Amino acid sequence: MITIDDIRAAADRIGDKAVHTPLLRQVWDGRELWLKPENLQPVGAFKVRGAVNALAALDETTRARGVVSYSSGNHAQAVAYAARQFDVPATIVVQEGAPEVKVAATKAYGAQVVEAPMAERSAVAHRLAERLDRVIIAPFDHADVIAGQGTVGLEIAEDLPDVRTVLVPVSGGGLASGVGVAITTLCPNARVIGVEPELAGDTAESLRAGRLVRWDPADRARTIADGLRAEPSQLTFAHLRATLDGVVTVTEDEIRQAMRVLATRAKLVAEPSGAVSTAAWLFHQHELPAGPTVAIVSGGNVDARLLAEVLTEQTQ
Amino acid sequence: MITIDDIRAAADRIGDKAVHTPLLRQVWDGRELWLKPENLQPVGAFKVRGAVNALAALDETTRARGVVSYSSGNHAQAVAYAARQFDVPATIVVQEGAPEVKVAATKAYGAQVVEAPMAERSAVAHRLAERLDRVIIAPFDHADVIAGQGTVGLEIAEDLPDVRTVLVPVSGGGLASGVGVAITTLCPNARVIGVEPELAGDTAESLRAGRLVRWDPADRARTIADGLRAEPSQLTFAHLRATLDGVVTVTEDEIRQAMRVLATRAKLVAEPSGAVSTAAWLFHQHELPAGPTVAIVSGGNVDARLLAEVLTEQTQ
Repeated sequence: MITIDDIRAAADRIGDKAVHTPLLRQVWDGRELWLKPENLQPVGAFKVRGAVNALAALDETTRARGVVSYSSGNHAQAVAYAARQFDVPATIVVQEGAPEVKVAATKAYGAQVVEAPMAERSAVAHRLAERLDRVIIAPFDHADVIAGQGTVGLEIAEDLPDVRTVLVPVSGGGLASGVGVAITTLCPNARVIGVEPELAGDTAESLRAGRLVRWDPADRARTIADGLRAEPSQLTFAHLRATLDGVVTVTEDEIRQAMRVLATRAKLVAEPSGAVSTAAWLFHQHELPAGPTVAIVSGGNVDARLLAEVLTEQTQ
Repeated sequence: MITIDDIRAAADRIGDKAVHTPLLRQVWDGRELWLKPENLQPVGAFKVRGAVNALAALDETTRARGVVSYSSGNHAQAVAYAARQFDVPATIVVQEGAPEVKVAATKAYGAQVVEAPMAERSAVAHRLAERLDRVIIAPFDHADVIAGQGTVGLEIAEDLPDVRTVLVPVSGGGLASGVGVAITTLCPNARVIGVEPELAGDTAESLRAGRLVRWDPADRARTIADGLRAEPSQLTFAHLRATLDGVVTVTEDEIRQAMRVLATRAKLVAEPSGAVSTAAWLFHQHELPAGPTVAIVSGGNVDARLLAEVLTEQTQ
């Protein structure tokens, strides 16, 4: 388990390589909500925190050889961004057929991109890392990554010490683990509630069962929230069991409505995964504790056409 | 003319009633730009700064009687918001036929809304103010409002002391005046460049002529940037002459493209008026000085359908 000291060390290492995002107070229909807009980070997601911390924590000689990672989502771009910050090479293994826009974004940060079949992505990355004598920066199953993501919670605790509820999206669990440790340590009266799409509600089921319940990846892939299709590792699940007070699941329609509310009222572009926490607050109030509430808007990398669709379907 | 001391006093008065917005570093196609996202303010625009400062600067007895203003745009909501912060009444005069959504937003902050023909708006407001024994909070022709908007520049100077260019939208000139004073005082090597739509380029022409050149309101109303259809007063024009290094004008198509870039790359919803500074940076590079550049994204109150349209027309 990581500790608050690991998170504080991460905050020092990250410095100004990530944005200290403001808490944005909203009052919608008379109810107050604070948003933590991690979509405003470089690469458009909180992932930059973990990636920068993981690279910063390496000794200089190791880091200079470069890093390898595997992801087709925000973590790929985050590792590429972090490697460029430290001026070291990065190689990212993406699955064949990954969206061209995401591959292009990763390349734009100077990373080398290698394609592999989905099932072999991790294995290919490990072979590459061995051959190149580089370390792997895993997307969430990595203590330094978890500590980096935890700086989101550290900032919330510092900026809103009276917080009573923090709503955090859960996928692989890196963000929720780090935020869970930060908030339960610094704000003992606050609760950390995970949020998942119903269609990828494996962590909710796992926490109820008290053990990791695996869902078929094809089932988890049904949700529009493409950033929430992973599942926790043993490491992150241990953190989630210790620090989460529960998991709320939201429907696909609730996610789309939350995206629209975030764009029209908070002026924030959220990707579906980034909107689930706001969806929980909008549509599952009876499942949440009272008091000052923060929803972490974890990312904003959404296709322009999908955003336009969500905006339009709700205004007709 | 207001001074940096007025702006510093405004910052103290405003405190946490407005957000200290972060500077968001972007690197687009290899070029660096810093965004100042004032669309993330309460009421979705920088206007909250001036309104809060103007109310805060009143003596308590005067303020307790309440305030009157006239606007159909972001200033109306800002005064309504500020009045609620101080728990005093606000009456806003809007033109007949003002968009229902903006009227509803103003009412939602607890303000009373009075309709009047466009040409009589100001006169009706002044009669109301006299009858109710209340002060008027003018949208920009008001020293405390200008000083409040100037806190945007103060934050830029503090957070990026090496700034060389600040791009600021110009309409009535309250924001540009305040930012102009802050930046020219604190960052003598930096230039402040105003940005206007070509279709409402009266200030560009006025600065070239060295005197206020009036454009027909019907002409100024052609631009999609509905927040930039006003014209400077003698007070703001004096500030603009003293502090702006020039004005760049942008086309309607450039504004729409900038809105799309802000949404897809910076994850920010900007209204057309809020996107002009980014449009200047994207499409008028040859007219701008080199070095670290900040574009002020002044507001985000855009109709969901227009935003969807802008997102879609560019992705086809």
